[in-house]
Formats: sequence, C-alpha cells, structure tokens
Amino acid sequence: MPVKKGSTSQLQRPSAASPGMTFHDDGIAALAWVERYLETLRERPVLAQARPGELRAALPAHPPEHGEPFAAVLDDLDALVLPAVTHWQHPRFFAYFATTGSEPGILAELVTAALNNVGILWRTSPALQELEEVTTAWLAELLGLPSGWHGQLEQGASISTLAALAAARDAQPGNRVVVCSQHAHSSVEKACRLLGLELRKTPVDDAFRLRPDALDLAGACAVVATVGTTSSTSVDPVAAIADVCAEAGAWLHVDAAYAGSAMVCPELRWAFDGVERADSLVVNPHKWLSTPQGCSAFWTRRPDDLRAAFSLVPEYLRTPDEVVSHSEYGPELGRSFRALKLWAVLRCYGRQGLQARIRDSIRQAALFEDWVRAEAGWELCAPRPFSVVCFRREASDADNEALLARVNASGEMFISHTQLAGRYVLRFAAGGARTTDADVARAWDVLERSAA
Amino acid sequence: MPVKKGSTSQLQRPSAASPGMTFHDDGIAALAWVERYLETLRERPVLAQARPGELRAALPAHPPEHGEPFAAVLDDLDALVLPAVTHWQHPRFFAYFATTGSEPGILAELVTAALNNVGILWRTSPALQELEEVTTAWLAELLGLPSGWHGQLEQGASISTLAALAAARDAQPGNRVVVCSQHAHSSVEKACRLLGLELRKTPVDDAFRLRPDALDLAGACAVVATVGTTSSTSVDPVAAIADVCAEAGAWLHVDAAYAGSAMVCPELRWAFDGVERADSLVVNPHKWLSTPQGCSAFWTRRPDDLRAAFSLVPEYLRTPDEVVSHSEYGPELGRSFRALKLWAVLRCYGRQGLQARIRDSIRQAALFEDWVRAEAGWELCAPRPFSVVCFRREASDADNEALLARVNASGEMFISHTQLAGRYVLRFAAGGARTTDADVARAWDVLERSAA
Repeated sequence: MPVKKGSTSQLQRPSAASPGMTFHDDGIAALAWVERYLETLRERPVLAQARPGELRAALPAHPPEHGEPFAAVLDDLDALVLPAVTHWQHPRFFAYFATTGSEPGILAELVTAALNNVGILWRTSPALQELEEVTTAWLAELLGLPSGWHGQLEQGASISTLAALAAARDAQPGNRVVVCSQHAHSSVEKACRLLGLELRKTPVDDAFRLRPDALDLAGACAVVATVGTTSSTSVDPVAAIADVCAEAGAWLHVDAAYAGSAMVCPELRWAFDGVERADSLVVNPHKWLSTPQGCSAFWTRRPDDLRAAFSLVPEYLRTPDEVVSHSEYGPELGRSFRALKLWAVLRCYGRQGLQARIRDSIRQAALFEDWVRAEAGWELCAPRPFSVVCFRREASDADNEALLARVNASGEMFISHTQLAGRYVLRFAAGGARTTDADVARAWDVLERSAA
Repeated sequence: MPVKKGSTSQLQRPSAASPGMTFHDDGIAALAWVERYLETLRERPVLAQARPGELRAALPAHPPEHGEPFAAVLDDLDALVLPAVTHWQHPRFFAYFATTGSEPGILAELVTAALNNVGILWRTSPALQELEEVTTAWLAELLGLPSGWHGQLEQGASISTLAALAAARDAQPGNRVVVCSQHAHSSVEKACRLLGLELRKTPVDDAFRLRPDALDLAGACAVVATVGTTSSTSVDPVAAIADVCAEAGAWLHVDAAYAGSAMVCPELRWAFDGVERADSLVVNPHKWLSTPQGCSAFWTRRPDDLRAAFSLVPEYLRTPDEVVSHSEYGPELGRSFRALKLWAVLRCYGRQGLQARIRDSIRQAALFEDWVRAEAGWELCAPRPFSVVCFRREASDADNEALLARVNASGEMFISHTQLAGRYVLRFAAGGARTTDADVARAWDVLERSAA
C-alpha cells in the first residue's frame, strides 16, 4: 500500500474513501499515546535531562519534501521530543506554580482544534464569545466576586495585565506611573515598558506584602496589587490599597493569576478582601484550576475604558450585529475558543470538585511544611497562605543553589527558587492533580538525602 | 453505578481503578464526536444562525455544584453550542481568510494539551523552544526566506506585529512614527496605540498597493509593508519600500499573515521580492497552512533589538542554563507549545502537500473569478494575486450589502465584505481543505439566485 503519499492526500480529504491510515486510526493512535503518556509519567525524569541544542541537532535540518504518516510523528514524539520535555503534568513537578491539564480540559482541546473557531467578531463564533461570557460569570460566582463584571479569556496573565494597564493609562492621560510592590510579577514591568509607563515599586513588610503606608501615588494611573505573589505567594492588603486608590483616583488592578483559583474555597476568601473594589482582576485557570495552558480569566468593571483603549473596527469587520465583540477589549483580534476547555472543567469538576483539588494541594503543602519545620538544619522562609512552601537549608546561598541543582538533576523531582530578604530560597509548589502524599514524601526524602 | 460523583473523582485520578466512565472511554467519545463533526460539517449552516444572547440564555445561570460526566459536555455541545458556532472548517466558509485546521494539526493539539507544557524558560520545556526554532527554520526554508533569522511562534499576528513595533520603537528613541499603507491591517494601528506611536498612512495605487513615491519617513521608526492586504490581498512593493527604509534607517516589518504561506510555491515568490531585506516578518500558518488557530510565525534578523525591548529576568526565573528563552523576545512570559501542531502539519504534508493545498485554493478562486467575469451584472473590483476574489453586483452599495446578508442568512455559504475605492465590495476567500469545486459552484449559484 502506498502509505506515504496515500496518507497525505487522505489527511487533506478525510471523508474520501481511501486505503491506508485514516483520521479515525490516527486519532485512536494519538489518544492511546496520550493515555500511555499520562499513565507512565511517573516513571520519567521530571526536568528534561537534555542539553541545550540536543533536540535541535536530532531533528532534520530541512523540512520534508513529501508528507509522512501521522504515525511517524508519534514515533518521533517518543524517540526525540519526550526526552527534551519537562513534564509539567508529572506528580513530582513542584516548581514555579504546579499546574494540571485535567482530562476534561485535554479532551476539550481536541474538540476546540476540530472546531478551529476564530473569535474576531461575535458572528465569527457566537458560541466562542458567549461561552466566554458564561464561563467567566460562573467563575466569578465560584470565586465570590461581584456579579455583573465584564469577563473575557486571554492567553495569559501577561496579556491580561497589559490590557488592564493600557486602559488605565488611556483613562487618565497625563498620569504615567504604575505602582506595585517589590514582589509584583515581572509582567507588570513588561507591560509598563510596552506602554511607555514608569514603574514605581513600593516596599513590602516582613511577610512580603505591599505596605500601604508606603504607597506614593503621585502621578499614578494605576496600582497593581498581588494576591499570591510569585516568590512567596504573599497577599497584598487589597482593601487598604483600594482606599488609597479611591482617594487618588487610580485604577486598581489585582493580579491573582495563581491564588485567585483558591477563592473557590470560602475559608480562603480573606485573601480577596477588597477585591470587589478592583477595577480589573486576572486569575489564571490554567494555573490552579485544572485547565490546560492558554486560559487567563480577566474581569473589569470598567469595560468602556477597555473598549476605548482597544476598539478599532475597520470596514472589513463592520457588521449589522448589535453586539460588541471581545476583540474590542484587548490586544488580540482573532481569539481562540478558550472557553470550551474552561466550560468542560467547570462542569466535570463542579464547585465541590474544584474545592477538593485546592484543599488537597494545600494539605500536601502543609505536610511538606511540617516536615521542614520539624527537621534540624532546615528553615522556613515565608508564611505559607496557599500551596507553596518557601524554605532553605541552614547553609550558604551557594549550598542551597547546589542542592537545587542536585535534586533537579536527579530527575526525581523539580523545584525552583527565588530570593527573599536577600537570601537564596527554595520553593516547593504543590498543586498537581496526580501528586499523591507519597510523592510529597519522596520529594522530601530526595531533598534530605541530597542535603546530607 | 454512581456515574456523577464517580466520574469526577476518576477524572482527578485517571490511573486509579474505578467504576463508570474512564479517560479512555471519554476520549473515544470525544474522538467520535470530532469525526462525526468533520464528516457532517457540510450539512450545517455555515454562519451561526443564532441570535445575540441565545446561547447565553440557554446555559445555566450558575455553575454546577457537583461534577458531571464528560458525556454531558458532549451532549450539550451538540444541543446548545453547535447552533451558535460559525463553522470555520465548513467547505463553504468563504469569509475573511478561509482556514483549515487539518487532521494532523487537530491531533497534535490533543497531544499538546496532554503535555501541558509552559514555555517560560528553556528548561521549562527545551522541546517547546527547540521545536519552535526548528519548525520556524523549516518554514523559512519552505517560503524561500534567508537562513539564520531568529524565529518564534506567537499566538497571532497582532502580538507578532506588536513585538516588532516595540523593538523598532526602542531601537530608535525619538522616532515615534510608524508608516504603513491605507490598506494595512488594523493590528498595526492597535499596536501603535499601545506603544504610544503615531501612525501615518500612505496612499495606495489603483491596485491598492502602497505607493513608495508617497512615503514620508520623517520621524519614522518603522514601516509596515503588507504582502496580501486584508481587503484585497494586494501586495505592497517590498523591495522599493526596503530601499526607502534603508535610506531613512527605519525598521521594515512585513505583514504577510495571510499570503506568506503561499510562498511555499516558487511561482508566487514574486510577492516576496525584497522581503529578504526586512527586519521582521509575520506569517500565520493558522491561516493558510493547515495549522489550527494559535500559530503565528514571527522572524527577525534583529533578535538583539527584540531582546532589548522585552527581556526581564527576575530572580525566580534565573537559571544556570546558557540559553536565551523565547520569553525574552516577546510580550508573553509563559508560551504554549505551538510548535507541535506546526511540526505535525509540516511533516504530514511535506513541501509538496503544502504546495498542493495552496495551488488548489488559488485554482478554485480563479474558477470563481472566471464566472464573475463572464456573467453580466457582476464586476471584479481588484486584481486577484492569491485566493481571494473581490467582486460586486453592478448595483448600489445597499443592494450589495443586502445581497451579502441574504446569502449568509441562507446558511449555505459565508462570505464577508470590504470597501475598495469607496465602494461596498464582496469578498470570496477560497482556502478550505474540504472545499470541492462543487462547493465553489454552489456558492456562485447561491449568489446568482440571491441576486436575481
């Protein structure tokens, strides 16, 4: 059977009767690949053990002349690509913020790709836009946010924060300063650079929270408060910051990209005190809400200011539809159908399922924290409000850095680091859905053995 | 069997033995859904026939309390969501720029979601970054571009163009003007607003191409030349523009989001004459290169200027790896594994398969153009270099607008419009992989009947 040429033309005309592999067979093979991948993840090194350039060198220097069967792609995925993959879905991925692309989310992405919708205008996919509205409204309710905010889904928090600060800048021409804490995410600085704004960093208290008494809002168009900072997951006092913003007339943007998902649990809502007064808010379901990569929820109670900053309707996009398209509220024109995966996740977990996931992560982080606290030679370096433990060996920075390198090179676990109060600090982030308590125990064991 | 609660906890722990539906069963169901969708597409109305708010009203006002089986999501996808979907994969989708999310691309998205990689740093997924380098190098070769350019994949052309103009601005402080033609895409204006740049639009000739003799580069940091404008797919004379840019020291960004993919065919390379002298270039494989949504290829021969504009490495992202991460060259921090779908497409089609797709689209557009030309009462409104025919009924603008509304409301086809030389013009964009010549003939038949 002429597999090579045959398969290419079938792929172009999947409904045509034809010999050899079909989309059905390729699909079954891809699905089996995914099942095997998720089932055998635990046996793989977490951090890719590849050297820089290794995969690049292993791949052909030139593109193929003729089409190949999809099976060849799956073969090379195993042989060449996987050794260069860092396994974010691995049960012992404890770096940055642990994520889970859950099964409903994964399958929703298959459907999304088949629909291949592009949200340019409402009419180019009413479902894309309205499901974005519905899922962000559902999520707002789950997180205890006020009803009625305008919600949309962006690719990531960097884009959401860029959108918020662009609107804040344009709403207050003349005020060219953005204020945040020393621990705000680097995306705030990146957005300021793009927007031509000056960034003013406010000192933090000894729990790494922005000090409202130190806020200087002279010339400020916006303040970014963080609920769950990247280094230590500290929570800025949003209510106090909102007071200062109200007085100065500055836009309050809340970055809860990581910790926002945890607000599905009422017992954690203290961290959102004051967020109801924010002008905009970002929470990333693709971090801690079981949604695959590419789903950042953005809300604003000032949609008109967003629209003023971004709306552009050239003739070829003018329609008689009396609906404002989501492309008028952000940097993108054509948006992906991100709502489908979030919809699948919210439905397949439900409020209780999502709460269970968050509580499980926090419980595992608390387990790890207890072990660090109890063991001589280790110290905790920050309060732990959520699922991230900041700790270090009672030794030099260089010793801790070397320890990190050793445990990551082992392939048994992957953790990352930061600096707190001028010291090198290790970060253990729980959160993976496949992480068992035994995985947490093994991580601690690896750390202890490596430190000895 | 306790389906509801059972299925949720299985979804969280897919490897655990448990009753009821499993990821395997859900996956088979999702795959079957996709197969059926692609096979029955032809029977659906192309443009969603939903009224604004209809889907929103059909969905529950509140999120579910308990998890539901994934099968319930698939059921509602059919019952509620599909009626509100505009079918971009439909064989008679002829609006904007016709796209195809091909079968290898669709299945690659399933794999991508399962891997759930986040490209923050090289080490967070060496495969993500190196496959991005390899696929953009392969694509550059396929399109006849110079070797050695820095390539990366962004979500869409709006972000790619934003990145290019940010680098151009920062490379030439003091020059705050961007120059493009009256027919450049709205994303150029959107980027200028974000970046605080002034946009100067240059007149076009009677074939809607930028007039180099009318270029005024005083104070310009960048010029955007378009190869395949959105309205008429006209091709700006890049070589002549490059001469003027070189003299003025302005950054030349080429927007070939649509037509760039066609350069895989040597006989069309005249349109890229001079592009080898560009400072940056964007081509969207998710438009005309069979790749699902979310894949915009961006190249620059000035990566250091991109890095100067975007690089920010906070402590928590510092590593000993001696590799510059792609996040240092653009607005995003965490990027999706976009290269996997492009890799699958390039391999499963090969150069010849990709060429066949482009040539087929152009041949179908030429068919349609011939019919318009031959028939009394119709006129062609622009040259047709690629797969888009600009035409209109010899009647008033209002008549043409009403005609567009009628054919789109029929559900049999979907076309869009623009304005050319002050007149309302219809656009017929061929390009879908499932479009047969009979579909093109039927579209023409619908137009003729509707106009009568």
